[in-house]
Amino acid sequence: MVLEHVTSRWGVLVLAALRERSYRFSELRRQVGGVSEKMLAQTLQTLERDGFVDRDAKPVIPPRVDYSLTTMGQEVAEQVWGITRWVEGRLDDVFEAREAYDGTRGS
Amino acid sequence: MVLEHVTSRWGVLVLAALRERSYRFSELRRQVGGVSEKMLAQTLQTLERDGFVDRDAKPVIPPRVDYSLTTMGQEVAEQVWGITRWVEGRLDDVFEAREAYDGTRGS
Repeated sequence: MVLEHVTSRWGVLVLAALRERSYRFSELRRQVGGVSEKMLAQTLQTLERDGFVDRDAKPVIPPRVDYSLTTMGQEVAEQVWGITRWVEGRLDDVFEAREAYDGTRGS
Repeated sequence: MVLEHVTSRWGVLVLAALRERSYRFSELRRQVGGVSEKMLAQTLQTLERDGFVDRDAKPVIPPRVDYSLTTMGQEVAEQVWGITRWVEGRLDDVFEAREAYDGTRGS
């Protein structure tokens, strides 16, 4: 599902990084802390296939591949950024709700 | 992750339904087509624990349980609704991008 591609744990972080500028794979991996090479490759591939990310492979040696947002990717990144910031702003309330919930159920 | 709870396949549909009004479990299950009892119960429990959904169990026989959005749930539901509508409006472009991507790779 498209929405899940852009709001997955890594999808969100990749879009947030690419909002700022284009990245080479290894740079992006450092920027998106904690992501495995395989997961980052998968995330980028999914976003590229959906039309949100542009993959630009330069014919040089050693190979150089730059990732950037397409116009549609910039739009979705703004949307995801907005909701992510909203969620971050309410995390304290969420944690409080969870404590209350877990307390009630004695777990 | 909170964002994934509200943007999961079923999370989105539950929030969309509850934006309109409160629902009893069985009603909600009919409204959210294709969801299993187990998945709906899980989705509601996660959203309740995060503080987005209020579960109101009436002490009557037979038991009656109503689900509705909390104030925070209404806010997140609006955000999710916005991005969902954006994605729906761009689905044709996404499908086109996928065709182009799959065509290039001959799969």
